Amino acid sequence: MKAALLLAYRGDRYAGWQRQANALAVQAVVEKALASLLGGAVALTGASRTDAGVHARGQVAHLSWPDEIAWGALVHGTNHFLPEDVRIIAASAVPEDFHARFSALAKEYRYRLVRTAVLNPLDAPMAVRADRDLDLSALHEATAALPGEHDFAAFTLTGGAPRTTRRKILEARWLERGERLVFRVVGDGFLRGMVRSLVGTLMEVGQRRRTPEQFAALLRGAPRGCAGPTAPARGLTLERVLYANDPWPAPAGRPPS
Amino acid sequence: MKAALLLAYRGDRYAGWQRQANALAVQAVVEKALASLLGGAVALTGASRTDAGVHARGQVAHLSWPDEIAWGALVHGTNHFLPEDVRIIAASAVPEDFHARFSALAKEYRYRLVRTAVLNPLDAPMAVRADRDLDLSALHEATAALPGEHDFAAFTLTGGAPRTTRRKILEARWLERGERLVFRVVGDGFLRGMVRSLVGTLMEVGQRRRTPEQFAALLRGAPRGCAGPTAPARGLTLERVLYANDPWPAPAGRPPS
Repeated sequence: MKAALLLAYRGDRYAGWQRQANALAVQAVVEKALASLLGGAVALTGASRTDAGVHARGQVAHLSWPDEIAWGALVHGTNHFLPEDVRIIAASAVPEDFHARFSALAKEYRYRLVRTAVLNPLDAPMAVRADRDLDLSALHEATAALPGEHDFAAFTLTGGAPRTTRRKILEARWLERGERLVFRVVGDGFLRGMVRSLVGTLMEVGQRRRTPEQFAALLRGAPRGCAGPTAPARGLTLERVLYANDPWPAPAGRPPS
Repeated sequence: MKAALLLAYRGDRYAGWQRQANALAVQAVVEKALASLLGGAVALTGASRTDAGVHARGQVAHLSWPDEIAWGALVHGTNHFLPEDVRIIAASAVPEDFHARFSALAKEYRYRLVRTAVLNPLDAPMAVRADRDLDLSALHEATAALPGEHDFAAFTLTGGAPRTTRRKILEARWLERGERLVFRVVGDGFLRGMVRSLVGTLMEVGQRRRTPEQFAALLRGAPRGCAGPTAPARGLTLERVLYANDPWPAPAGRPPS
């Protein structure tokens, strides 16, 4: 039987989702826990490679689940073997043609900033400090250029070899809540490091070091190197992967930050 | 000169605020950092002893600051010597008769729960799992009995030796945001373990194991042992200490959870 897993993890200790030869990846940790439960090797396919240090509230992966093993054991049984910073939140039977990555319609990421002189240690594991005097109207103006299909070549890290650097952004906005500032972006796909590179460049707009027009011009396939710095991984969370038929109900009324 | 510090810390690694002989306390860590900065011993007086594992977003402490040392060095200079999980957020000169504890009018605590089958690792460091089917209307009804002056003898841990077990609650309410449930309580003072004991007992009301009337009856000086279990420390945060003249501006529009 085919099963989909909804996973959440703190990225701090991991070299990202994708299994790697010489570094600890979340995929390997979950596969190992499943193998402990099932007594045999299991292969997971994730929806999104998250980069090293990036968190996930709603990563999705699929696997083949042995018909002879009771379904109810999956979530709590696997969690028993997982370290505290990784959890399976839910599991669901899915059609045989479901593919965590290829069936995904869109992904939602959030990047969290706190505009403060000193970042509170309670916020620090999942947010990054920003200056209090950011020009928010310039930030909003630049961000309004994002929805639509663009060439994001300027906003990718080396190391990926994408077939195309064009991606479609469905929604991009900054949510302001007091001193907190959250960048919410939904797109049909993201290049490696793209969200963090967008945030780093938008911060330069907020600091009046680039104009919103200069930012918009980068969306027309400007070469790598034209964009700003890549914002730190710990501010970024993969919030949700969207499917035509979601394997589980959408989280009810999740707060915006 | 007398100075007041606004402090934030993750409680995980500490045996609470108050300096202890055989355990690491936040007070000792901050005093040590100040001593490194100033080159001599410094004594802090905190507004609230927080228990082991309890977090603070707004602890307040006062100290004598040497007139000959530049004021601007205090926040960033001390933070340089502090571990990542403790930060001085702000510092302010205060009148000589200011006392972090005795001048405090009230304190605000928040206890964070998530109603879910599996607690997300992103929430886990500062929240506790609760059942989805909690009876929220019973919870609200019981909580409505809290504002006012009561005898909280039933809701204290052994170890404290309070002069009186009467305390005045100024505000107590549950904030619901999707699956998140936050208990916000403001009072003129709190007994040792009191907030966590209130939460543990209110959870039993939510689980229909006590009625709101039975909860209210405990507020009339019922003996220790009549209350429910003490909820885990990591869900609790000291949010703010209130003074007649706040040493620093109130945080602007902080979100309710």
